[in-house]
This record gives sequence, structure tokens and C-alpha cells, in this order.
Amino acid sequence: MSKNLTSRAEDYSKWYNELVVKADLAENSAVRGCMVIKPYGYAIWEKMQAELDRMFKETGHQNAYFPLLIPKSLFEAEEKNAEGFAKECAIVTHYRLQNDPDNPGKLRVDPDAKLEEELIVRPTSEAIIWNTYKGWIQSYRDLPLLINQWANVVRWEMRTRLFLRTAEFLWQEGHTAHETKAEAIQEAELMNNVYATFAENFMAIPVIKGVKSESERFAGAVETYCIEALMQDGKALQAGTSHFLGQNFAKAFDVKFTSKEGKQDYVWATSWGVSTRLMGALIMTHSDDKGLVLPPNLAPNQVVIVPIYKTDEQLEEISKIANLMMGDLRAKHISVKYDNRTTLRPGAKFAQHELQGVPLRIAIGPKDLENGTVEVARRDTLTKEVIALDNVTSTVENLMTEIQTALYTKALNFRDSHVTLVDTFDEFKNVLETKGGFISAHWDGTIETEAKIKEITKATIRCIPTDEVPENGICVYSGSSSKGRVLFAKAY
Amino acid sequence: MSKNLTSRAEDYSKWYNELVVKADLAENSAVRGCMVIKPYGYAIWEKMQAELDRMFKETGHQNAYFPLLIPKSLFEAEEKNAEGFAKECAIVTHYRLQNDPDNPGKLRVDPDAKLEEELIVRPTSEAIIWNTYKGWIQSYRDLPLLINQWANVVRWEMRTRLFLRTAEFLWQEGHTAHETKAEAIQEAELMNNVYATFAENFMAIPVIKGVKSESERFAGAVETYCIEALMQDGKALQAGTSHFLGQNFAKAFDVKFTSKEGKQDYVWATSWGVSTRLMGALIMTHSDDKGLVLPPNLAPNQVVIVPIYKTDEQLEEISKIANLMMGDLRAKHISVKYDNRTTLRPGAKFAQHELQGVPLRIAIGPKDLENGTVEVARRDTLTKEVIALDNVTSTVENLMTEIQTALYTKALNFRDSHVTLVDTFDEFKNVLETKGGFISAHWDGTIETEAKIKEITKATIRCIPTDEVPENGICVYSGSSSKGRVLFAKAY
Repeated sequence: MSKNLTSRAEDYSKWYNELVVKADLAENSAVRGCMVIKPYGYAIWEKMQAELDRMFKETGHQNAYFPLLIPKSLFEAEEKNAEGFAKECAIVTHYRLQNDPDNPGKLRVDPDAKLEEELIVRPTSEAIIWNTYKGWIQSYRDLPLLINQWANVVRWEMRTRLFLRTAEFLWQEGHTAHETKAEAIQEAELMNNVYATFAENFMAIPVIKGVKSESERFAGAVETYCIEALMQDGKALQAGTSHFLGQNFAKAFDVKFTSKEGKQDYVWATSWGVSTRLMGALIMTHSDDKGLVLPPNLAPNQVVIVPIYKTDEQLEEISKIANLMMGDLRAKHISVKYDNRTTLRPGAKFAQHELQGVPLRIAIGPKDLENGTVEVARRDTLTKEVIALDNVTSTVENLMTEIQTALYTKALNFRDSHVTLVDTFDEFKNVLETKGGFISAHWDGTIETEAKIKEITKATIRCIPTDEVPENGICVYSGSSSKGRVLFAKAY
Repeated sequence: MSKNLTSRAEDYSKWYNELVVKADLAENSAVRGCMVIKPYGYAIWEKMQAELDRMFKETGHQNAYFPLLIPKSLFEAEEKNAEGFAKECAIVTHYRLQNDPDNPGKLRVDPDAKLEEELIVRPTSEAIIWNTYKGWIQSYRDLPLLINQWANVVRWEMRTRLFLRTAEFLWQEGHTAHETKAEAIQEAELMNNVYATFAENFMAIPVIKGVKSESERFAGAVETYCIEALMQDGKALQAGTSHFLGQNFAKAFDVKFTSKEGKQDYVWATSWGVSTRLMGALIMTHSDDKGLVLPPNLAPNQVVIVPIYKTDEQLEEISKIANLMMGDLRAKHISVKYDNRTTLRPGAKFAQHELQGVPLRIAIGPKDLENGTVEVARRDTLTKEVIALDNVTSTVENLMTEIQTALYTKALNFRDSHVTLVDTFDEFKNVLETKGGFISAHWDGTIETEAKIKEITKATIRCIPTDEVPENGICVYSGSSSKGRVLFAKAY
């Protein structure tokens, strides 16, 4: 199978598309721009969900569920948010089909079943949630309100790619309400930090934390915090965002609270989300020309055991060893699968597990039976070693940590070697074309300059980094003065 | 709060509606027929999900995700299924909004953004899934295919009630493909048994397993297995269904496989689902006039500790005890919450926890400090006892099992005392009106008789029980011959 994978050097984009399909992660569906997430891909997403959900709960959030469909009058209440999503909305206008008199056996929309008010399939849920919060918040005692929702959303994107940009995607969206501006900002920052911790510790993806420029902000936000990752082709990928919404939605939906002092005020809001897009980031950060490479912390199977045998007796003996080994590994909370399918030869199994990114492969053959050994192969380095049976559990346990760290370090080194300080626009364009990655450059802070740079180079401001050091300089494009560098890149 | 709950005797339906809202489980939204599932209600649903998901995986199923929107041409491919759902479909016809020239600040559907083909918001996913399976199944090696999806679905019901019947609801839908008819039937039965086990062991709801009559079958199914529960008002509730779909969907979507012998044949299918409707069953089975009663296996908080104090020193001492107690209980995997809110008096806390169905309440007051005791109150029996501090962990641990069993036994006794054998139609009508519950009666097996009985009494055939004993008899309505009794009831 993996033989046919296009190499990254040949065509990175084609490599990605082929990999997603061949590794059984997802595929396009009969619905324009919508994907089917296959069991193997979904198992990785479930591991991400479980960990994020744990982190959200640990920081005091609870899950809830709000309607999929949003009445148009609510959708348009916060004008900037509505304007931002209006052009990519799926709209429900009717609620019944009927037999088509012109086409026996076919159905058509029943013209008599037109909705009085159109319903928007949620592209994001601020409108319906803030309309609900109006009934939940009266007093400071009701605050903070810290809620998260796991849901599907629809944004009618014209150019779609599996995981990275799909018309329907899965995500979580947190929506919180607070007494004070400071508390809401703190929450938005906290959740951006949670995302960064998750990306680094679980996905093994180094990220840069920062805030968006005004034109890249979420529609309706006062400030958008983000984490930005770098893919192997030198393009950036926004991996998560957390928004300080000010009082915009509270005002649009008239959500006021009575303070301890008895005063009425609008509440302060945040929202934050990550989506199945993270799957794209995970794939593109670590994988190679042989297929997927998964960090142990997110691999559905961390270890696979493949028996190599000629006789039934050999298989029986190998299976005994494999079963004992699985017991020991599972006791250490390591997930392991015994691939004893009789329909595939060992070579084909090796190729499949490589393609699907199983972190460790253990092969047991006739020689191993004689010597009391097994062969352990690492997916990330493609290296093999023969080790004594007695050392399997401890070796595997250590390798889980080692591989997780190695993947992160490798990605960090790549990322760090792809942040280039430039001081002229020629240099800017040159680095962007030859090397890619993040370009750290002075910017005069205007929307006009940002738009011009994007028009000329396709690079956008990915973020104003949180750890930015104030530094007087000259805007790389306009020559006007600047107080610090920001990060530009071409992005997914 | 609970003072205002209408009693069951007064108005069962009103009691239910009030309870759902006052116990913070769910509420109606701005979208007709769609509910908001509030954090407390969602926490119960999450516990249900976790256990069901575990049971599905243990029986070899994997999760995946398929598109929300189904092109009309796919939707109508399996005619009976399409016909069954056509009258309650939300239909997406457009993909963009624009500024409304007649209403500044408002949006309208962009007439130029009409979809070439309408998209149906899934009411169930057989169509999109079987269209996908066509690409996944070629050989017997690809079978069985055992997949489940957790998702939202929309059915445009005209009369809705929180949890029981909502235009949008959450559910899981399993969709499996098999080589043989026997294997598919076995799967459908297996999953109906999984549902029954879950209902009985976790929800503490006794259920009757059986199959549906032809007119109550799922649209497109050859056989529908079901579990039927009985609510306290004597009405039945279908708590889960599992369908043997024959080759209907395989034929509609042309899904064939090559057998071991090299022959081509259509695959055999099942689908099975339970939904947030189970929340309605849970609420109605156990709750009382004081509010929700939850079985320990599904309670978000199994125990709540309430401090009763006059001085800060007392509170401090109580908190020390509470913290130790929580450590011990959590070590036994018992979930416990310390309700030390200063904004509410103990009486108000008691009322809230009763209303929200926390299985055990532990109160610690000044007298308890003196005596080294605590007061333990059971929600299900509303009984209290004072026990020594040293015995708390073991007592609570035992009570968790005892309450779980007691709730099941109570519900079972109620159910068993509400299955009435009748042999005449007068008796049938009389029992239905005076006592309710399941009526076990002979039926001639015809759709006409079934429809007549429904028209006259509003009772439907809930199921032909799996453990039905063959018994020659006379149909209670038509006087024609019958080979066994079936269960009738009025139902949710």
C-alpha cells in the first residue's frame, strides 16, 4: 500500500491527501466538502477529545448542548459575528419532502412546508448560546458561567481539504460569562494556554502563543488569542483560538447581571475552540514518506505485535509469548494489538502499520523463539533492535516517553530553524519563497500595510507573539515606525 | 424551589415538564421543538454515553463519523426508509445569506446561492452510511463491518416534549454489515441485549425485550427488536431499538461482496440506536414529587456533603472531616461533592439536592462534631440515619449498591404489577382506562386489527415479547385465532 504514497518533496499537498486516505483516517463523502472520518482517524480524535475534556473539567468547565439550528433573527443580532459568517451558511428553509408528481419514486421539497423564519445550521454558537444565557444570568452569583460544547458545525467553504478545511467539522466550543473584563481576559488567556499545553504535551507540536491582528480576529471578538504551529512545508497552521469577546454579545442579547454592590452591568464573555483541523496539524507535523507518524500519547495502538512463522506450532508458541507480553504492557497502561491476521503476510502488515503510524512494532519470529528475543522497530526513526524477552516491558515503557519527546524535539528544531528575522521587504519575499516558515518582521500596525503584504506575498500576520520583546524598528513594507516584530507566514 | 413542583397525582405530564426544568436538566430553546441540555442533564447523558460506548467497544464496534447533510438523491434511494422520514425532514436549500436591501442591518437568504441539490439534515444515517460502505466492502475479508456513530439528528416533529420527543436529539446509531443473514440477525439481537443490560444495570429500569409488529417497525427494516419500559403513569416507553435490515440498503446502494467461494452477494445489515430519550425514561421511572431520583450508577454526584454550622470554627472543623471523608470515598470510586456555598442555607441546599436526585446526602452539624457522627439521608426512601464517622465509607459503599438494587426492584415490582392478561375487548378497554400498563392479549396478527384497536383505544402493540409462550387463543378484538399473546399499551 505505502509504495504508492507520493513523496513530500515531490508534491507535499498530494502526499497529504493520499496519506489521509491510505492511512484510513478520512475520505471525501458524497456531500460536497464534507468528510467521513473513518474508524482509525476517529480513534485518534477520541483520544484528543478525552484529554481536552479532562483539561476543561480540571479548569472548572462543564459540558452542555445547544441547538444545531439558529433562527435568522438571533443569528444576525451580533452584527460583526453575523457579517463574518453570513457568506458561508447552510440554511434550512423547509421542513418536509413530498412525492414528486413528475418523477415517480422520487421526492421533492414540499412547497407548503416553508419555515416562517429560516434556520441557520450553526457555523459557531455564540448567538444561540448568548440568547440562552440571557435566561441563566441575573446576578453575580450566577457568574462565572463556564460551559463547553462538543458539536458539529457547518461553514460552507468553497475550497475544502480533508481535516484542514471541511464544510462540516467537529469541534468543541467553550462559551464563558464573567463579572469583570479582567476575569474574562484571564479566562481567554487560560484556555489559550490549555490549548498550547495540549498541543505540546500530547500532539508533540510546538506552538507559538500570541494574539491576532485586527483583520485576522474572530468576527465579533475584541481580542483573539491563538496558537500557531509550523508544518513541514514551511506553512503555518492556526491550531486553536481563544477569544475575548468584551461585552459585544452581552449587549446584542441584553445579558445583564446585578453586581454585589447592586449595580446592573453587561457581562463579559469569552469563546474558544479547537476542531478536527488538529488532525491535519498532527499528520503534517510528524509524518514522513512512508506514512503517518503518531506520538504515543495519541496513538490508538501504541504497540503492535506481528508474529512471523512457518508452522502452526511456531505460531502457537509465538502467541503464548505475545499474550504474556500484552498482559504486562497493558498493566503499564500501554495499548497493544496482536496482529495475527492470517489473510496478510508479515511484510504487508509491517507496511500497513508503518502507513498507519503505530509508534512501536514488535516482531517475533522462529529465531526469536530460539534466542528468547524479539525485534522492536520504532516508527519515528525507522530503526530496529533485537532485545531480550525479559526487557520488553521496561524497554517499551521507556520508548513511549522517548518517542514522544523525540517527536516534539524534532518538530521544535524544525520550527526554530524556520523563524527568520528579516528587515527588508526583499529579504521578506526571498525567505518566504526559498525557505518558508515564520518571518519575524517589523510592521507599522495598520490594516492597509497588512493587506498589501498579503496581496503581494500571500503571507498573513499569524500572530503578535505573547513573548514579543518591545523593539523600535521600521516597518518592513511601509518604512513607518514600529514598536515590535510580528510573525508573518503563508498559512493553511 | 421544590415546593412548587406539581405532584404526579395532580398532573403527571406537568410534573414531568416542571421537574426537567427545575432540576436543571434541560429547557426549551428559541428554536421550535429543540432543547438546550443544561450542564447537570448533560452530565447524566455523559455517564450514559461512557458506559454504552464501553459496551459497544467490548462487543467489537468502532466509532466513526459521517456527514450531517444527506443529498436528496441518496436520501430517497431506499424507498421505505425515505417514505418513513420524508414528512419530518429539515431541508437545506441555500448556502449563503446577504444583506437585506429592504431592512438595513438584517440579513436574508441570497437567492443566487441556491443548492443544485437539496440536502436533508439527517433524521437517521442509513443512506449516507450505506453509500459510503459501498466503497469499503468488496470481499468477505471486509466483513463484518461494525461501526457506531455518536451524533445529533433532526426530525421535524410537530408535538415535542423535553427529552421524550424533540426536533433535534442526540443519539448513537450503530450500522453493521455482515456476510450472512444469520449473522446479521445475531448482531441485531446482541445489541438489543446490550441495551437491555444497560437499562437494567445502569438505569435501574426493567425492560421487556421483543420484536415490533410490522406497522411499528423502523422504516426500511425487516425486523425491529426493541426494549420496552413502563413509566409510573402506566404508559410504555420504547427505550431502544435494534433493526435487522435484511439486504434492503445493500440493494438500494448496490453493496455487494465476494464470498470465500468467489460468489457475489449483497451484504446483510443492521442498525441500532438509543437517544437522549433515555433521559426521559430515567426521569419518569424513578422520580417522585420532591424531584429527581437518580440511580447511583448514573448520578453525576453520588454523594453530597452539607455542613451545618453557626461559627467559623465549626465550619473549619466540619471541613476537615469532610475533606478526609471525600478522600476516602473517592478512593472507592464514589463521586462526592462538598457543598460549602455560603450563599445558601442548609435547608435550601437539602431541597436542591433532593430536587436534583443526589442519591445520598451527608450532613455534618455541631452535634455530630461532639458525637463523632454524621447524618446520612437516602434520596430514594427519604430516610435518615445517624452513623459513626468511622463507618461512613463502608456504609456509603454498601448503600450505593443497595440503592441501585432497590430502585430496580421497586421499578420491577411496579412493572410486574402492571402487566395484565385480558381475554375480552371490554376488559382490555377497562384495564387500559383504570390501571394502564401493559396488556397481554391475543391478536390475530393483522395490520387491520392492530389499527382498529389503536383507533379505538390509542393503545399500540409495544412488542411481541421474546419470551412469549406459544398459546392458542382468540383475538381480543376480531375473534379470529391467535398463536400467542402480545403486549399492548398506551405509549410515549
